[in-house]
Amino acid sequence: MSSSPHSLPSWLVRGMADLFPTGDPADADQALAARLADAEQHNRPLRIKLGIDPTGSDIHLGHSILFRKLRAFQDAGHTAVLIIGDFTARIGDPTGKSTTRVQLTKEQVEANATTYLKQLGQGQPKDSALLDFETPGRLEVRRNSEWLEELDLPQVIALLGTATVGQMLAKDDFSKRYGSGSPIALHEFLYPLLQGYDSVAVDADVELGGTDQKFNVAMGRDLQRHFDQRTQFGMLLPILVGLDGVQKMSKSLANTVGLEEDPLSMYSKLEKVGDAAINDYVTLLTDLDLETLPENPREKQKVMALAVTASRYGQAVALKAQADAATLVGGGGDAGADVPEASLAEVNFPAKAFYLLSAVGICASSSEARRQIKGGAARLEGEKLTDPNQEFASAAELEGKVLQLGKKTFRRLVG
Amino acid sequence: MSSSPHSLPSWLVRGMADLFPTGDPADADQALAARLADAEQHNRPLRIKLGIDPTGSDIHLGHSILFRKLRAFQDAGHTAVLIIGDFTARIGDPTGKSTTRVQLTKEQVEANATTYLKQLGQGQPKDSALLDFETPGRLEVRRNSEWLEELDLPQVIALLGTATVGQMLAKDDFSKRYGSGSPIALHEFLYPLLQGYDSVAVDADVELGGTDQKFNVAMGRDLQRHFDQRTQFGMLLPILVGLDGVQKMSKSLANTVGLEEDPLSMYSKLEKVGDAAINDYVTLLTDLDLETLPENPREKQKVMALAVTASRYGQAVALKAQADAATLVGGGGDAGADVPEASLAEVNFPAKAFYLLSAVGICASSSEARRQIKGGAARLEGEKLTDPNQEFASAAELEGKVLQLGKKTFRRLVG
Repeated sequence: MSSSPHSLPSWLVRGMADLFPTGDPADADQALAARLADAEQHNRPLRIKLGIDPTGSDIHLGHSILFRKLRAFQDAGHTAVLIIGDFTARIGDPTGKSTTRVQLTKEQVEANATTYLKQLGQGQPKDSALLDFETPGRLEVRRNSEWLEELDLPQVIALLGTATVGQMLAKDDFSKRYGSGSPIALHEFLYPLLQGYDSVAVDADVELGGTDQKFNVAMGRDLQRHFDQRTQFGMLLPILVGLDGVQKMSKSLANTVGLEEDPLSMYSKLEKVGDAAINDYVTLLTDLDLETLPENPREKQKVMALAVTASRYGQAVALKAQADAATLVGGGGDAGADVPEASLAEVNFPAKAFYLLSAVGICASSSEARRQIKGGAARLEGEKLTDPNQEFASAAELEGKVLQLGKKTFRRLVG
Repeated sequence: MSSSPHSLPSWLVRGMADLFPTGDPADADQALAARLADAEQHNRPLRIKLGIDPTGSDIHLGHSILFRKLRAFQDAGHTAVLIIGDFTARIGDPTGKSTTRVQLTKEQVEANATTYLKQLGQGQPKDSALLDFETPGRLEVRRNSEWLEELDLPQVIALLGTATVGQMLAKDDFSKRYGSGSPIALHEFLYPLLQGYDSVAVDADVELGGTDQKFNVAMGRDLQRHFDQRTQFGMLLPILVGLDGVQKMSKSLANTVGLEEDPLSMYSKLEKVGDAAINDYVTLLTDLDLETLPENPREKQKVMALAVTASRYGQAVALKAQADAATLVGGGGDAGADVPEASLAEVNFPAKAFYLLSAVGICASSSEARRQIKGGAARLEGEKLTDPNQEFASAAELEGKVLQLGKKTFRRLVG
């Protein structure tokens, strides 16, 4: 398409894995470019839908890819419509799941939603936040219980009537489960329809999703057509590979970097990401130009880790984290390094080493702490701890020292 | 089971094809007998559910099997709970269907329901009615919109969550459709659950149904268990074979005897039922003892036809119909026979023969009338009509004469 009348801006296409509906991607490109031009001409911002199911409480970098794209639309003057799936979370998205999900209570969902919004930057100035909560007209936060709770049975029947069993069972995850004889509860078929109905309810122009959400996003288009609405575009972004470099970033696989992790921990983890994943991290999590990356793999890791940390905390904090990481990983503790603190106030003395690691929250349990110490992963001021039962007499003995677990977790002990 | 502590009364077991839940039918027998005994002891009539979807307007003998059983329960002192599936009819029972059913409007369903109740004897003394509308406490007529319209989405999700896709696709009709690639709309999966929920709503002790309803009736049990109710028994009765002796009696197969057909037409049709089906007709549609039937097939037909007609119209009317049929089928018309009348008031003269047959309603269309006349099936006063274009000058020429189509349809023409 050499003579395209419209083309898409680079902030929009950056990292994009798929844009649909049309078979030929260039057609979808042109159609979306035309809608953007129309939006500009009539001064009608597009409505960009992103649905999140608050089934967990921590946002990690894998999630933030979508929020970054949503923010890019905000910065270009469009309206982000963030849908808290407080109703659908009570069903649970069956996408990619091999078993029926546990249904959350209204209270759990609301607690998670509050935490999510805080992490996304609610109440913060836009420069230090993932989303722009500040500029008027740039964000609508909606809960889908608002319209889904109002649906009565005849409306649910009408919704169900728009799809067939065959369509649902053609969906990859359902197909696998059905094929393997693993039960699929009937209410799971409702999920794609309900989240599709969200697009109707908010009159979305574009829906953002991971590449695993294509079915659900397409359902939104189908339902908009059914309800005689202008249909949305589906814009899919890649699923970020986790720190292991193999599987998708997911809390349950313990390969995540949390959005709320301190700069040092974030930098230290990112610095270890394998070469194969680095370009994706840069493209999806920073605004850095890929061309500027050094060729040396080790240098490349550092540049990427610095850029991602900076995108979250700013350049100055990121540089400090980089320097601290170099000091700490290089050898013993350094009293000047900017290490997150852990309080000794709740620790009972005399304290054995395994108890200390668990009591300050560096290990999840005493038994894990014993294992880590025996495995040689724990250090105090750079000195390896070898005996889980080593005793510390008082807080005074530990105050100001750095406790380290593995290569990436550091805590300065304070009174 | 020679020493059964309880046994079921003969009015109850007559014609029964299946009683469940338990694997061993004798167990179900005993359990139901115990519940009957309990009902008697505590003077708490059982609640016998029969759901009907008012998707058509005419009740035929095939349907009446279930109503007769329901009446037998009424006569034994129990409460018939007749559920008009005004809500579920708007979905349509997918049982036995090979395609998604057309959804009826509320108005169509209500019109059909009114006609049904009239045919079942609403407003009539119990002796001439199929059901006892008269005795206090013996009948509850309920519409399932009463509780189904109240269901909200969370309740629908809970209902859907009680069943799996595998369960539904194991159902014979769904399985065939899925296997052959014929689309199944998702709302069809809701049907068995909603009609099962009817059992919960009315607290049924027994649900009556045809043998093709086993899945749906079992779903009622599952849902009662889910809602911590005492579970109902399922009592299934055979599907009546139609006049063709092969397929089930069904309006769409044109092999029915309508409940509202005049005695002569009813008797004449029944008299032709093949030998293989006679015992079923007697068992399911009369109170006659099978042992008393004559061995001669022709005599057997007559006794059955007389008994079924009598069960609807009483012995005197049935005997008259029998006599009339003998006269009419034997030869020409007989002015004394009790033939239903057809009015000539709306017929325009001069009238050609084919038009006459269509205008008095004996044929569905002029083209059918032409075909019937050419095929030699139409007679006037016993004389075969041969020319579809034969003209009749005036009503006077026809008044009082009997017009006959085939061997079973007779109309006396009146001014």
